[in-house]
Amino acid sequence: MAETPIRFGILGCASISLKLTKKLSRSITLSPNSTLDAIGSNSFDEAKKFAAENGFPPSVKIYGSYEAVLDDPNVDAVYLPLPPRLHLRWAVLAAEKKKHLLLEKPVALNVDEFDQIVEACEANGVQFMDGTLWMHHPRTSKMKEFLLDTQRFGHLKTVHSFFSFAANDDFLKNDIRVKPHLDGLGALGDAGWYCIRSILWACDYELPKTVIALRGPILNEAGVILACGSSLHWEDGKTATFHCSFLSNLTMDITALGTEGTLHVRDFIIPYEEKSASFSVSCKTGFTEHVVTTDLPQEIFMVREFSRLVKNIKEGGSEPESKWLSISRKTQLVLDAVKASIERDFEPIQVWV
Amino acid sequence: MAETPIRFGILGCASISLKLTKKLSRSITLSPNSTLDAIGSNSFDEAKKFAAENGFPPSVKIYGSYEAVLDDPNVDAVYLPLPPRLHLRWAVLAAEKKKHLLLEKPVALNVDEFDQIVEACEANGVQFMDGTLWMHHPRTSKMKEFLLDTQRFGHLKTVHSFFSFAANDDFLKNDIRVKPHLDGLGALGDAGWYCIRSILWACDYELPKTVIALRGPILNEAGVILACGSSLHWEDGKTATFHCSFLSNLTMDITALGTEGTLHVRDFIIPYEEKSASFSVSCKTGFTEHVVTTDLPQEIFMVREFSRLVKNIKEGGSEPESKWLSISRKTQLVLDAVKASIERDFEPIQVWV
Repeated sequence: MAETPIRFGILGCASISLKLTKKLSRSITLSPNSTLDAIGSNSFDEAKKFAAENGFPPSVKIYGSYEAVLDDPNVDAVYLPLPPRLHLRWAVLAAEKKKHLLLEKPVALNVDEFDQIVEACEANGVQFMDGTLWMHHPRTSKMKEFLLDTQRFGHLKTVHSFFSFAANDDFLKNDIRVKPHLDGLGALGDAGWYCIRSILWACDYELPKTVIALRGPILNEAGVILACGSSLHWEDGKTATFHCSFLSNLTMDITALGTEGTLHVRDFIIPYEEKSASFSVSCKTGFTEHVVTTDLPQEIFMVREFSRLVKNIKEGGSEPESKWLSISRKTQLVLDAVKASIERDFEPIQVWV
Repeated sequence: MAETPIRFGILGCASISLKLTKKLSRSITLSPNSTLDAIGSNSFDEAKKFAAENGFPPSVKIYGSYEAVLDDPNVDAVYLPLPPRLHLRWAVLAAEKKKHLLLEKPVALNVDEFDQIVEACEANGVQFMDGTLWMHHPRTSKMKEFLLDTQRFGHLKTVHSFFSFAANDDFLKNDIRVKPHLDGLGALGDAGWYCIRSILWACDYELPKTVIALRGPILNEAGVILACGSSLHWEDGKTATFHCSFLSNLTMDITALGTEGTLHVRDFIIPYEEKSASFSVSCKTGFTEHVVTTDLPQEIFMVREFSRLVKNIKEGGSEPESKWLSISRKTQLVLDAVKASIERDFEPIQVWV
């Protein structure tokens, strides 16, 4: 029996999100259980140009508005790479139009906005997932096995995460991530999202009790964060720190210290190589480098898993998998707390579920 | 012409500092420009036992007091591995007796005490050096070359350092480092000393303007720090964080992020292998693992360099090399600031030179 692929629409393919959209449209096309059905942009010409540049087949419909994609009954799911300030409006509308939702990070400007997206997804029975690619790399579950191994890793005591890249002058002037009217969360919403997620991932999504931003965040003239850091504190004494930045050389580290072992990974966001990715563990029995090989890039794993969940709902009558909403919400909660701490002169902020 | 080696005395060889003293006595014996002349302990029997266990030749004098070592006119220099609470008294007396001084870290309980040691060393023209071994490993200067390379590394933006080891129950009950009447600085004075030094080293010993301890340090019942962390902040926006602990698996990381490159080292305190040590750098041209081979362990490099400086003073009429006093003092200053921040409810502490 031939598989019926999940049909995707993409909302937004303007030059500001071009790179991501390109990557995801390729993944949607290459993933065995999905197909690209339509793309929409506020500018029909931009959408047309994008389709031509990426060699989309004539079967991909081109729309001059986002609404048109959402109104197309053939579209099962949408990928939404719009600037964060537009997430609330379009994510809620997509859910209301019963489109399953693959939403770029940061998922919203704050958790109140995100809760409206959650409500819309739940009310309309649509699957939600955010676009945090590394969660879907096979290496990630291998690393998790180590963290859960009480003999080799023991119990988590502390984590440090770095995500930085040295943005060029053009990025620092023109990218949506440095524009308060398009984004608003800057390096914290972008690079910091990954750091916070990696910390939550390492401690099995147990929320910290308190978050305190580190002093000295660097802001641009419009007040958007270009670099910042924070410490996170749990009830049981666990701690974490992270530093995220648009101003330092590409660094993508997670270091997790347990009572018995240590995990190091240096390219957790995007593995240096597409076909293999490594991490290292040290424990009493020594120091080991693990290499995980894969024949697919991580974005295809993500699209495939998302499409599998959508298919289960559409054809198998399953409920949406709620863990992705929960993980996104916790990430946004911590992100909000870091932002609040920066705004309140580095006060400790209690994280409320 | 035969070399006249620098003649060392060792103050203290009780079981509490046995491991370090063993390592250093071996280094003094193996280094080409030094020789072990005398050991002294409060207990003559302990000193005798130590000499026998380590196979010292009969030429090594054994004394039942520290004073006797300091009064021996043949002794040029002393290695002082006593508990930190005894440093002030014995380091000052050693300097007054014109003995060059190799002092274990933490150098003192606070910078006021250390300034008295500085004064005694300067007034008596003796060479000072603290026992931070990794400073003398050939890898350290290779890593420094990378950090100073404005093309490959650019300018330092942030550093993170971890030093932790999982102390066993015996250590946590009986080691001098967990006893307030012997040490007082706990994991901060021991593991934290290395973290602070690594951060200062990475930024060329420029002192931070502000230091803020991270919340949630872990103390034992006597109030001694078993794990803690801090952030450090410079005038120009540079930041650093560290975490030191007796409660997590052995981890010895420096990660330094520049505008153009990143340095990673995972065993900076004691290289995993004695004959080679590695570090990795990433920059625009890619990711490179550097291996530095050496035929000597780092402690011999330290003893040799210290002895060379002493010889220059003794035979060449040189002045003592003051950089080692300066580096130790800066490390102690930052350490004091972290401790003060912990004691003052995690207030930012200004670092005054």
